[in-house]
Amino acid sequence: MKILVINGPNINFLGIREKHIYGSDNYDTLLNTIYDYAKYRNVSVECYQSNCEGEIIDKIQDAYIKGVNGIIINPGAYTHYSIAIRDALASVDVPKIEVHISNVHAREEFRHVSLTAPVCTAQISGLGIYGYKCALDALINILRSKL
Amino acid sequence: MKILVINGPNINFLGIREKHIYGSDNYDTLLNTIYDYAKYRNVSVECYQSNCEGEIIDKIQDAYIKGVNGIIINPGAYTHYSIAIRDALASVDVPKIEVHISNVHAREEFRHVSLTAPVCTAQISGLGIYGYKCALDALINILRSKL
Amino acid sequence: MKILVINGPNINFLGIREKHIYGSDNYDTLLNTIYDYAKYRNVSVECYQSNCEGEIIDKIQDAYIKGVNGIIINPGAYTHYSIAIRDALASVDVPKIEVHISNVHAREEFRHVSLTAPVCTAQISGLGIYGYKCALDALINILRSKL
Amino acid sequence: MKILVINGPNINFLGIREKHIYGSDNYDTLLNTIYDYAKYRNVSVECYQSNCEGEIIDKIQDAYIKGVNGIIINPGAYTHYSIAIRDALASVDVPKIEVHISNVHAREEFRHVSLTAPVCTAQISGLGIYGYKCALDALINILRSKL
Amino acid sequence: MKILVINGPNINFLGIREKHIYGSDNYDTLLNTIYDYAKYRNVSVECYQSNCEGEIIDKIQDAYIKGVNGIIINPGAYTHYSIAIRDALASVDVPKIEVHISNVHAREEFRHVSLTAPVCTAQISGLGIYGYKCALDALINILRSKL
Amino acid sequence: MKILVINGPNINFLGIREKHIYGSDNYDTLLNTIYDYAKYRNVSVECYQSNCEGEIIDKIQDAYIKGVNGIIINPGAYTHYSIAIRDALASVDVPKIEVHISNVHAREEFRHVSLTAPVCTAQISGLGIYGYKCALDALINILRSKL
Amino acid sequence: MKILVINGPNINFLGIREKHIYGSDNYDTLLNTIYDYAKYRNVSVECYQSNCEGEIIDKIQDAYIKGVNGIIINPGAYTHYSIAIRDALASVDVPKIEVHISNVHAREEFRHVSLTAPVCTAQISGLGIYGYKCALDALINILRSKL
Amino acid sequence: MKILVINGPNINFLGIREKHIYGSDNYDTLLNTIYDYAKYRNVSVECYQSNCEGEIIDKIQDAYIKGVNGIIINPGAYTHYSIAIRDALASVDVPKIEVHISNVHAREEFRHVSLTAPVCTAQISGLGIYGYKCALDALINILRSKL
Amino acid sequence: MKILVINGPNINFLGIREKHIYGSDNYDTLLNTIYDYAKYRNVSVECYQSNCEGEIIDKIQDAYIKGVNGIIINPGAYTHYSIAIRDALASVDVPKIEVHISNVHAREEFRHVSLTAPVCTAQISGLGIYGYKCALDALINILRSKL
Amino acid sequence: MKILVINGPNINFLGIREKHIYGSDNYDTLLNTIYDYAKYRNVSVECYQSNCEGEIIDKIQDAYIKGVNGIIINPGAYTHYSIAIRDALASVDVPKIEVHISNVHAREEFRHVSLTAPVCTAQISGLGIYGYKCALDALINILRSKL
Amino acid sequence: MKILVINGPNINFLGIREKHIYGSDNYDTLLNTIYDYAKYRNVSVECYQSNCEGEIIDKIQDAYIKGVNGIIINPGAYTHYSIAIRDALASVDVPKIEVHISNVHAREEFRHVSLTAPVCTAQISGLGIYGYKCALDALINILRSKL
Amino acid sequence: MKILVINGPNINFLGIREKHIYGSDNYDTLLNTIYDYAKYRNVSVECYQSNCEGEIIDKIQDAYIKGVNGIIINPGAYTHYSIAIRDALASVDVPKIEVHISNVHAREEFRHVSLTAPVCTAQISGLGIYGYKCALDALINILRSKL
Repeated sequence: MKILVINGPNINFLGIREKHIYGSDNYDTLLNTIYDYAKYRNVSVECYQSNCEGEIIDKIQDAYIKGVNGIIINPGAYTHYSIAIRDALASVDVPKIEVHISNVHAREEFRHVSLTAPVCTAQISGLGIYGYKCALDALINILRSKL
Repeated sequence: MKILVINGPNINFLGIREKHIYGSDNYDTLLNTIYDYAKYRNVSVECYQSNCEGEIIDKIQDAYIKGVNGIIINPGAYTHYSIAIRDALASVDVPKIEVHISNVHAREEFRHVSLTAPVCTAQISGLGIYGYKCALDALINILRSKL
Repeated sequence: MKILVINGPNINFLGIREKHIYGSDNYDTLLNTIYDYAKYRNVSVECYQSNCEGEIIDKIQDAYIKGVNGIIINPGAYTHYSIAIRDALASVDVPKIEVHISNVHAREEFRHVSLTAPVCTAQISGLGIYGYKCALDALINILRSKL
Repeated sequence: MKILVINGPNINFLGIREKHIYGSDNYDTLLNTIYDYAKYRNVSVECYQSNCEGEIIDKIQDAYIKGVNGIIINPGAYTHYSIAIRDALASVDVPKIEVHISNVHAREEFRHVSLTAPVCTAQISGLGIYGYKCALDALINILRSKL
Repeated sequence: MKILVINGPNINFLGIREKHIYGSDNYDTLLNTIYDYAKYRNVSVECYQSNCEGEIIDKIQDAYIKGVNGIIINPGAYTHYSIAIRDALASVDVPKIEVHISNVHAREEFRHVSLTAPVCTAQISGLGIYGYKCALDALINILRSKL
Repeated sequence: MKILVINGPNINFLGIREKHIYGSDNYDTLLNTIYDYAKYRNVSVECYQSNCEGEIIDKIQDAYIKGVNGIIINPGAYTHYSIAIRDALASVDVPKIEVHISNVHAREEFRHVSLTAPVCTAQISGLGIYGYKCALDALINILRSKL
Repeated sequence: MKILVINGPNINFLGIREKHIYGSDNYDTLLNTIYDYAKYRNVSVECYQSNCEGEIIDKIQDAYIKGVNGIIINPGAYTHYSIAIRDALASVDVPKIEVHISNVHAREEFRHVSLTAPVCTAQISGLGIYGYKCALDALINILRSKL
Repeated sequence: MKILVINGPNINFLGIREKHIYGSDNYDTLLNTIYDYAKYRNVSVECYQSNCEGEIIDKIQDAYIKGVNGIIINPGAYTHYSIAIRDALASVDVPKIEVHISNVHAREEFRHVSLTAPVCTAQISGLGIYGYKCALDALINILRSKL
Repeated sequence: MKILVINGPNINFLGIREKHIYGSDNYDTLLNTIYDYAKYRNVSVECYQSNCEGEIIDKIQDAYIKGVNGIIINPGAYTHYSIAIRDALASVDVPKIEVHISNVHAREEFRHVSLTAPVCTAQISGLGIYGYKCALDALINILRSKL
Repeated sequence: MKILVINGPNINFLGIREKHIYGSDNYDTLLNTIYDYAKYRNVSVECYQSNCEGEIIDKIQDAYIKGVNGIIINPGAYTHYSIAIRDALASVDVPKIEVHISNVHAREEFRHVSLTAPVCTAQISGLGIYGYKCALDALINILRSKL
Repeated sequence: MKILVINGPNINFLGIREKHIYGSDNYDTLLNTIYDYAKYRNVSVECYQSNCEGEIIDKIQDAYIKGVNGIIINPGAYTHYSIAIRDALASVDVPKIEVHISNVHAREEFRHVSLTAPVCTAQISGLGIYGYKCALDALINILRSKL
Repeated sequence: MKILVINGPNINFLGIREKHIYGSDNYDTLLNTIYDYAKYRNVSVECYQSNCEGEIIDKIQDAYIKGVNGIIINPGAYTHYSIAIRDALASVDVPKIEVHISNVHAREEFRHVSLTAPVCTAQISGLGIYGYKCALDALINILRSKL
């Protein structure tokens, strides 16, 4: 079971970026948390981060062609306006879970709408770094129930 | 650790209601899933369902006064217009997680906005009945990290 | 053939409430009109009124479980904002007809939109108490054409 | 008692036009249904159809001058934007009932608003061809209660 | 100096139509007022009325080809939505004055916007039948100042 | 002179609920303040609180039938979306004053609009608990000037 | 017959201000045109100009108290946002005609809406300086028809 | 305790202006009511009226510099669009109460929004002239509770 | 293969109408271009022009009944508001291509939305008269690929 | 004659991506179709695809500097929000034709608006892969008519 | 080189007004900063402040007639709604620079739109008192480059 | 003192791109102007240009990590929709000044809103290339006043 975890723009600045919103753990902590939990759950995970909309699309396409089984994506700011990433997610026929570290519904109004969630299976927001573990569990659950 | 799980209007019609949206499990299955998982996680859970906005507010207030530690709520249709439930949730100082069985972001536009999520800690949507287990895990995690 | 007639908030104040809009017949006259006409058409009718959104949902669910064949509903003010009643109506697989005593399309702009009509079979508005007889005829027609 | 029944654009294409929306009966069936029912109810009915906004206005004016007692109108697509037909209906002092074959409230958003209903006595939508009989009954009822 | 006066839908119902808005003079009085005043001002006037959007466009085109010098138009309800009449007016290179009998700015909100006024030279509204004399004077003034 | 004071959802949580917005006095203090002041002003007051929209409507109807002379209402969150309470208030022909403890105009945008104020005589907001005394004075003033 | 002509902000800059919009005649020419035409029509006219919203209101009130018979007003930019001038015009019970030199309907969208026209008898726009003569004629006509 | 009472545009036309909205008492009666009640409550009051937005700001600034303790303001039409008066009120650190004679929430939609109320302590609307006494009482109450 | 080419309002004024937008070729040139190209492509074409919305609908219906294989339509201004023509196009089960001479996307905002394009197969805009040849080629291509 | 064909995000996933919308031909078929047709029409074509907004802009600039004669662009999802690509297209003074494989006007509302079409010469949508041949023909036609 | 610096409403309350937004320097400091810098740059500057929209227009007109070479204006709150000041600025043919002390783009949404900036040459916001020096430099630069 | 100057999409096309909007100086002139002025002001400046949103974010992050003291950014078209660049700017705790060569407030409506200005210290627009010098001066001023 191969899973791709995509982090969008500015998520590599965790721990530097507004800590009252995103918490004080940094991006390496996030990566370790995911890799450790994947090992514990016995699935293969690849983490990818890019600030570039186009590269995120490239990665989605590339992973799909290489047979990825599911995608966890935190599209960051692109969540709210990238129809191109939405289209990329819609074009790949695997389960997808959208994750947000902060509770986007409690922030500026332009963060209340997600263009990408409608083409994902589910959305988890506001659970901090823990949300990625939650998404991993859920994705494994979805993939296993399909077997 | 005492946790209240509130299910709003029409959720008692699971398994009867549009199955292509909500799945074929019925409300009893949902209850059993929650109670079993709570036992497994070793927390005390009370499940409550009402179709009435006012009764849901009554329950939130009552549980708070009796010392509940956290709330999981699926406000159903009230998610999208009940400022009164929003105010009730905002008035009780415990962690709250909003759950939706279906992916509300992928449905009618009036289901994309949540009035209650901004006063909750987190929102999980689209994971079916499994989402409640996910919320229970997350809530326990939040409550433990506070200790 | 069992038919449920639901009247929403303030409809019990017919004859008291703004008479230039709703006419001078009172709620008892409405009930008698419906019961008499049902007898004449040889169908079994139950009339129910509540000011409470949640109780209206309870009633819809209860009647459905007990095998009602069709529903006539005047959701009153709830027509324009109750997604919860909309969901309840959508969850029960019987013909439903929405009735309004006054012509809602000729009143305040917020009464021009119906959240419940899209999940009903039909809407009749502006025919006064007579509209209920009209709805009864139509519902019988629909139910018979299904046989 | 003379009644005019006006059918607006594309209603002559009943039975040809999207049958999953409008049913499979054709325009002749509609005409026969109306004429037969009028005979049964013992009123004089004239049916008129035009695709042209201006001709519909001409007909309303002409009928009014010739002493029509009431109008049943299905303005078709003009319902949603013809202020000119609205003005024509408003200018003639007889009861008017708006009919729609399909449930317009359950279709595209631009069909939810009616410019003509506010100047009619009542609106009936979603009852198929039967709606015209319903309207005829209602109109006779209104006209008789005026005597 | 040849001038065309176009009256749009329902204006032929002056004196019949809502008198508290449009006054009690009928359409013949309007015609006589215009013809008499034109004679007095020594210009040639043709009055045309149609309820049909397309015929109004035909008339504008036809008059332009036959060398009309200016147009006075009361587009009635078409003022507020007929882009087609707007385009027709824009396509003919003569002065055009828009007239409204009632003060459209003081009525329903949908009558506050004019699609046709932006392609006319001027707009006069609220002066009743007198407004046409006013428009005739103004048009003569514009045409003479061009000489 | 009999006056009904209705407090809507969450107002029973005064002193518990966000104190920086609603102050630190609790609901009992509010009740005592009202009863004491009513005694001082020599009028009979009944205080009623409910979190349920339907029960508030029931109470308004019941009090009206029993001959109440005036109503003071703080509809809480229902102020902003309950057309049903608006209709109930509109249906009873006595003076009504809307009160808000906090200054709703200075809070979230969705609290700036009141659906109930248009059918009341007056609105007082932002004066804390004192606002109820103010409303009582005003209501007595209105009722006396009618004598 | 005493008539007040009010010119609002920047109209004293006629002939200086954008000439392609307002023409090349200056404000003195406008004044002379009005005074000459008033003499010709045998009515008493006072012309007043101010850039200040408050002074325009003062003038309207003052003239009303002194018995003015009618008002011609070009509120300039205030047309589009001054509720205060609207209220002042609404408070004086004499005929009022709104004039605009340019065709406001053909300019920026924010100039398409008039807050003042709904409380005037009529609006004339796009006739240049000539529009004031037109308004004077119309006002005399209205006042005489009232005798 | 020095209190400034500001009345905005057209309020000096009380008793002249639409009496069905504002009542038949004139501005002098309003002044006397305020001065008498202030004497009774033993506070020093200055009443000021202006139709000019700028002068109202001047007065607010001037009174603040001279040590006013609180402000009662009826900004009239400026309530709905004067950001400048809002800024002036926000800049002076004393309690402020907004008063409206009529119930602004029950009038045209553009009167439902107040730009000034969000920077005041409270708003009272719909109590007629009595509302000023109410505001005086409330302001004294606020000022005393601060001592 | 029979193809109908419909040109809507004002298109007969090509070469007269704003030449900087529509070019200097006149309507006859357009007709000749189409007929010549149809001959070259060996298909039978009928060209029809009308300024009247209703006649365009009549033509669509008539051609469909007579067995037309495809339709090219330039609905002119009706593109942007004629739900009636949209419904007519939707009711006929043949390929339809919408053509615009000018690039409607680069003009006034109200020309950016097409009500008719969603029920056509394709839209071509901005290619001048050449666009009709383009549409003819495309339509032939679609029809042949169906064989 | 050198022509650049740009395909935006996800268009390289033709044949993989939703086939009911985009058809079953893959991206290589698209490329071959274009190159073959260019050879047939005797023009030099370069095809370029990128998922990255910035790279598309780089390509437009680069091609312009190297003397490209015209551009065919399918901006994919960027059509609807990339002001940056719009600006790039506007900055290069050659004919540009926008192409869409699907009929964007018949899909989600956010696909109805094109930010790029207003700075192109023309737009063709809904003709599938054939649309590129159509665009090539049109572009050659435009370039030749300029010679 | 004569330059006029206009400060709009409430700017004379600098140092009194919300210091966390506008800083603690008072209006005299602002004046001295401007006059000193003007002396240093060797240009003649006049500073003017008014809370009154009309007086600001008067000043713009007066300065223009007296031959001012450029204007620096901080219209304060009028920035966001004064079409009258916009028109005054548009009417004078000299370079104009709009200055804001605070960063208006980072404040309430109604401060994000400027009605006056579109008719100025440039806008500078967020640089505090220093912004005026910046504007002076820029204006001198513009005026010199014109020589 | 190290300062980063970022130029967004299409700014490298200065002198090629619409010269009536952006002037005729090319990008090299801009660079030289900045470098020369930085040398004169004795600060270290790095200029960076990219058409790619993601690369701009990369650069902001990279410069911040390497200790940049302040940022001047002209986000070009990204100003109006890039939440991702906004987030990047918000995440770095140094003064930032937004610059626009043209006066964006005087152009298309979609250029009036800036998503990036709210997280910058200041915005300067409309001063052409000179605006960068202005921004440099301002940034030095801010940085020095912090020392």
